[in-house]
Formats: sequence, structure tokens, C-alpha cells
Amino acid sequence: MTASSPPIPTRADCLALDAEDSLRRFRDRFALPEGVIYLDGNSLGPLPKSVPERVNRMLVEEWGGHLITGWLKDGWMDLPLTLGDRLAELVGADPGEIAVVDTTSVNLFKMLSAALAMRPDRKVILSTTDNFPTDLYMAQGLGALLDKGHELRMVAPDDLSAALDETVAVLMLTEVDFKTGRVHDMARLTAAAHEVGTLTLWDLAHSAGAIPVDLNRSSADFAVGCSYKYLNAGPGGPAWLFVASRHQVAAHQPLTGWLGHAEPFAFDLDYRPADGIRRHVCSSPGVIGLVAFEAALDIMLEADMAAMRGKSIALQELFITLVESQCGDFGLQLASPRKASATVPYLRGGQVSFAHPKGYGIVQALIRRGVIGDFRDPNILRFGFTPLYVDFVDVFDAVEHLKAVLNHGEHLDPRYADRASVT
Amino acid sequence: MTASSPPIPTRADCLALDAEDSLRRFRDRFALPEGVIYLDGNSLGPLPKSVPERVNRMLVEEWGGHLITGWLKDGWMDLPLTLGDRLAELVGADPGEIAVVDTTSVNLFKMLSAALAMRPDRKVILSTTDNFPTDLYMAQGLGALLDKGHELRMVAPDDLSAALDETVAVLMLTEVDFKTGRVHDMARLTAAAHEVGTLTLWDLAHSAGAIPVDLNRSSADFAVGCSYKYLNAGPGGPAWLFVASRHQVAAHQPLTGWLGHAEPFAFDLDYRPADGIRRHVCSSPGVIGLVAFEAALDIMLEADMAAMRGKSIALQELFITLVESQCGDFGLQLASPRKASATVPYLRGGQVSFAHPKGYGIVQALIRRGVIGDFRDPNILRFGFTPLYVDFVDVFDAVEHLKAVLNHGEHLDPRYADRASVT
Repeated sequence: MTASSPPIPTRADCLALDAEDSLRRFRDRFALPEGVIYLDGNSLGPLPKSVPERVNRMLVEEWGGHLITGWLKDGWMDLPLTLGDRLAELVGADPGEIAVVDTTSVNLFKMLSAALAMRPDRKVILSTTDNFPTDLYMAQGLGALLDKGHELRMVAPDDLSAALDETVAVLMLTEVDFKTGRVHDMARLTAAAHEVGTLTLWDLAHSAGAIPVDLNRSSADFAVGCSYKYLNAGPGGPAWLFVASRHQVAAHQPLTGWLGHAEPFAFDLDYRPADGIRRHVCSSPGVIGLVAFEAALDIMLEADMAAMRGKSIALQELFITLVESQCGDFGLQLASPRKASATVPYLRGGQVSFAHPKGYGIVQALIRRGVIGDFRDPNILRFGFTPLYVDFVDVFDAVEHLKAVLNHGEHLDPRYADRASVT
Repeated sequence: MTASSPPIPTRADCLALDAEDSLRRFRDRFALPEGVIYLDGNSLGPLPKSVPERVNRMLVEEWGGHLITGWLKDGWMDLPLTLGDRLAELVGADPGEIAVVDTTSVNLFKMLSAALAMRPDRKVILSTTDNFPTDLYMAQGLGALLDKGHELRMVAPDDLSAALDETVAVLMLTEVDFKTGRVHDMARLTAAAHEVGTLTLWDLAHSAGAIPVDLNRSSADFAVGCSYKYLNAGPGGPAWLFVASRHQVAAHQPLTGWLGHAEPFAFDLDYRPADGIRRHVCSSPGVIGLVAFEAALDIMLEADMAAMRGKSIALQELFITLVESQCGDFGLQLASPRKASATVPYLRGGQVSFAHPKGYGIVQALIRRGVIGDFRDPNILRFGFTPLYVDFVDVFDAVEHLKAVLNHGEHLDPRYADRASVT
């Protein structure tokens, strides 16, 4: 620390920040176990208290009470689209551009297929070596199936602009890196892609609910996302896909299920795609998961996104400052971009990562103390800063625990030598 | 009626049958609205009373209490396989042959892709013109994507054997017809397919839980099914897939998501399939839907399948006898096979269908009276006979309502002129 550095925040400072926090009223909307500081909402959001009530109502009143007639009476059949329209408000899409359906991976397959078919003379799918593996694997699976010489070209994030040329059919990126929280500039990269006629497919798994997303202002072509991280819809909650309205006539995907048919109940022998986003719905929607998502999304839509982003950055900066000042001697290295921004480009998402050779042991020792973050191979400790249920004092206390773990060598416990981790 | 026909059962006869029914104790395990006779479990099973409790426990104790650690602590990550192993008991599969995952349509795409890749020199997918449309549409979508000259050849059910030859890569059939309840002989057709080197892919949407299914005794190669009809897992509940163990090394499918990777948490850049059935799991499983299925399946596994089949047939025969004797003058024509069998070949599944030109109006008028069946274009009335929650007296009362509808012309109400129906 130099003489000119601001003083290190104290616990009292953090309590004062909490006292004036406009988002603090949301904390009571989530069920958080006593004694837990939850810094893993970037992997699985916690339970919104409204979800069990909403799910139970769907089970008992809708399914139990209405049986088969619930498909129309309770709007089950249209939930992928009605919920998509609500989600559109959060991510800068228009009504009719989003369907909540299937899983992120399956939606990625659908959207990538649609985009490749719109650029039949191009064979390159451009992505990054640090993209989330399922995105890369789904592209590999599709390429092998197509058997037409498509190449998944993976480059370092900084080399993307140089790699964009007229051979590239699709630029497929995850906006916020799952390990480091680094953010791609969606608007700039989309513009660069469009300059050479390349379509863009954005994975927003770590973006939606974490940072302001404006798909249409960014001119994004296709996108996919999940619901169970920053959107708090529960483990493996339903995923979603976005097709810009300007592409909705041209975009066709190969998972042509009956609910994407123009007239599902005509039971024609031949598939004819429905108009609009509905053609990307394949099968009967999983209603229980959808209503859980609906209840969780209501909370996100009630909060102000700019306020959420502002608080998330403040929490992250507090964490970095405290870790580097309190635990700096133990070899933790910041693995995230040092700066975040409240405006485009965002630079860092909703998480802060540190690297440490004993990272797995540190995360496990923290969990034993009730501070839940997670670990990613080979050496990354991830901590999510979700402004609706994390207080400033939680950050302070988490760093105190981290300091204690390191001081006492709790992370060196031999039982942590055998790693296992989970998303 | 001829003089030698048995007497038409009376309501008292039906009450006597219920009194001695060994399955009647299961009726109380389901939440059925007062005054409703539910004959649509072939489309959406009713709510098992254990489901809200089990789902709430998962939400509050597991997700709410364990947060991210639930993926391991509560077995969420392995649920597709552990639940698959339990389902295997019901459908004659071995442990490790079933994964509960994705939707029926998506699983069909995966299994058909896998099967076609195992027969690269053959271009014909053989199916029937009365297969459920999504099966046909998914095959069309896959064929178009492959762009290698595959042909979806649809024939009448009786022409299947003649159409099987060495050009056929895959025989893709729905065992029980969704409109008529007609049952294909799985063992016989599989044997005929194997004789010419053809692989089989069975859709068991209307079979599992409705009739005894023995995948391995039938030597089936691949199968898919749903959970929300006879298995009572709730609207759009998770689907499942079966790969015979003898094919598990050779079978590869193109939706190569990270949870089908040999080491998901190694985050390799290249996909390597997991061993066994796990490679057909794509993404994080939707846990809420899976635990609902688990609770519902427990009930099915507790009941004796032979007893269920016996009672289902008895209910169906009662219904046919009563409809034909009480409502025979109104033009209702049996659209299902007249005979069912408790042993292979089963001939008719869990439903009975009648055809009538005003079928839509009849179904709607019945629903107004609390008798829920459903309608399928152009003229099919479907009634499901599910032995765990339908009593003999329900069948008697349902036919009384049907007679009243027809006698009073309730089905001719002009509001039923404009059809709309739902699965």
C-alpha cells in the first residue's frame, strides 16, 4: 500500500454501505441458510422464497385441479413464449424473439445449425479457446454430423478481430468467461463480424442477470442462455434461445419437433415450420421447471439492472481490495480483469476469480466455514457477487474467513488432495 | 345382442368388481378433483399426492439448504442415470441402459442419429404413416441436416414386414398407436428387422406404464419414451432413452454436451465421449422435473404390472361393452382393435378410441360433465384406462354420461363447431 491509497474498508464501513443499499430489501426474497455466505450464484442461484409456493400452486391447483385442461387453461402450452417475452425485457430483446426451451447445449446446436445454413459457402465457426467446453463440444458434434468440412477455429480472445474474415460463417462466443469473468464487447465484435458477413451466436449463461445485456442494441443475431445461474431458476432450470426478428423467416433449425410445426394438432405427415420463434420449440414444455423460472424471473424484473450492476461492481471491488490487502502474502493472484465498468464495454462480469496452486483446498476449507465459492481446474477460485442477496458485510466476513483459512493452513488438509468439483 | 351374450354389467356389478380389486388401494395415492372421471391418463397422468411433498423437499431442503453442493450431496448430477436404472425395472432394461434426459423428440434425434451412423451404407428409415408426427418430423429434420439422401419411408402398419429389406437402416416405430391404441409386436418386428440387419428404434410414449414392456427380451436396439402420460410425472416431464448394452461402445450421438464427456470437469477443448449410457446425457439435468418423476415412478414400481395390465383390459372391455350396448344407435364406431391381450402380442394398449363425425363436440360435452377424455383429428375420441386410479364404476358412470350427451344432443352445441384440441 502506498501512502495515497484509500484506507482499507472496515467491517463498520461495510455495515454502513449495507444500511444505505437500495437493493437490500431483496435479500429477504431468497432462502439462504443460516451461517452461509453464498458467493456461488454464478454457478447456481439460491432459492427464491416465492418458488416453492408458485411450484406448489402449479402442482396442486393447475395440474392436480385442471389435469389435461391445464395446457390451455393455465397457459402451459405457450409458457416457452410468454416467459420468453418477459425474459426479453431483461436482455434487450423484443417480444417474439425469445423462447424458453430445452437446454443451453441443445439450443446452441439449434442456433448454430440455423446460422450455418444461412452461410452455406462458409466453413469456419470461430470461437475462443477459453469458451465453455459444452459450446465447443456441441459445435464439434454438429460439424461431424454435417460432414461438410466445417472447422471449429479456436483462438485466444485477443486474436478474435484478426481472425474474422469472409471464411467465417459464425462467430460463437460466450460473452462472460466462465473462469475469469472477462467480458467480450458484444456490440463491437458483432459489428466486426457483420462487416465481413459473419453471423454471431452469443452464449449468455454468465451474462443474463449479471450484467446489462442489450441484444438488439448490440445487433446480435442469435443467442442462448441458461436460467439457473444469475436468474435463480433452480438446478438445471430451462434454457432459452434468441433469434433476432430480422432472421426469423430465414432461420431454420433441425430439431423439428411437433410443437414447432405450423399446425401441431393437424397431425400432418410432413413438417412445416411455424412462423416466428415458435419453430424453435421442439416438444411439450417442462412446466414445473418453467413456473419455477417464472417466479424467479419476477424478482429480477422488479429490481433495477443499473443498480444491480453498480452494487455488483462495488462488491467485487471491495473483495479484491480486501483480499489483496489482507491475504496478499499467500500467493493469491487475481485471475479476473482488474477493472469492471458500469457501461459498455463491461470488461468484467459478475464474478471475481483468483488463481492459487492450492485453490481446490482453499475453496473446500472455505465451504467448511460456510463461505461457498467454487473451484475450476487447474487453479481457479471463483466468487460470484450477486447484488440481490449478498451484503457488503458478507464480503468483509468472507475475506476474514479466507485469511483464517490461509493463516491456519486449513487448505492444506490432506483430504483436499483428491479433487472433485462440480459446476 | 343375441340370446347367448352375457348380460350387460350393471352399476352394482361394477361396484362389486371394485370391491375385490387388488389395485384399488392405489387410487388414494392420486389427487383427483371431486366429481371428475379422468380417462385421459394416456395424455397427461394425474398428480400423485407424493409429488408436491417430494418437490417441495427438493426445493426447500436440497436446493434451499445445500445450494450448489446439492449437485453431489443430493445426487442431482447422477439423477439421469440413477432414475434411469429405476425405470429400467419397469421396461425390461438392465441397469446402465437408460438415461432420463431431455425430451422425447430430442432423444429420438439422438438415437436415430446413432443408429444411422451404425448403418452408413443404408439410406432408408422405415416407419408408419400413423406414427406420432413428432417422430416423423424429427426424422425429416435429421435427414435434411445429414443431406446424404436418407429417405423416411412411411407405410401402413400391416405393410411393415414386406417393407423390411437390406436397404433399411432403422425401423422407427411407436409401439402403441397414439390414436387407436393398436400395438406393434415389438419382439416379432425387431426379430424381422434384425434378420435383414436393420436396427430398431422404439418410441414407448404410450407403452411405458401402460402395458408390460420388456426391451431386452424383445432384443430392442434403441428406445425413447416420455414420463408424463402413464408415468404421471407432470406436464412436459423429463423424457428418457435406452441403448442396449451391446451397442453402447458403437453408439455415438451428435448432441455432444459437456455432461456426456468422459471428464466433464477437466474442461478439455475436445469432446471425448463418456463410457456407457452417460454419453447420451448432454446438459445439466432439470432436477425439479426429475424428482417429480422419481416420486411418481415409485408408485408404478410398487404396483404389479401384470395386475395393472389385467385390470386395464377389464376396464377397456367394460367400456366397449357398455358403449356399444348403451350408445350403439348414435354412430360411434370402435376405432381401436377389438381385442387386447394380457400376453404378447398385446394388440391394444391402454386406451380405447371411438370414431364419430361429431367427436370433438362429444368430448367437449363430456368434459363439461366432468368426464375427461380427449379428441384427435379428424374424428377420434380417446379414453385412457389407467388401473391405478380408474374404478369400474367410473367406467359405468362415464358411459351413462356419454349416453346422456348423445340423447340430449349436447354435443351439437354450436360452440363446439370451432375445434381446438391439445395433447
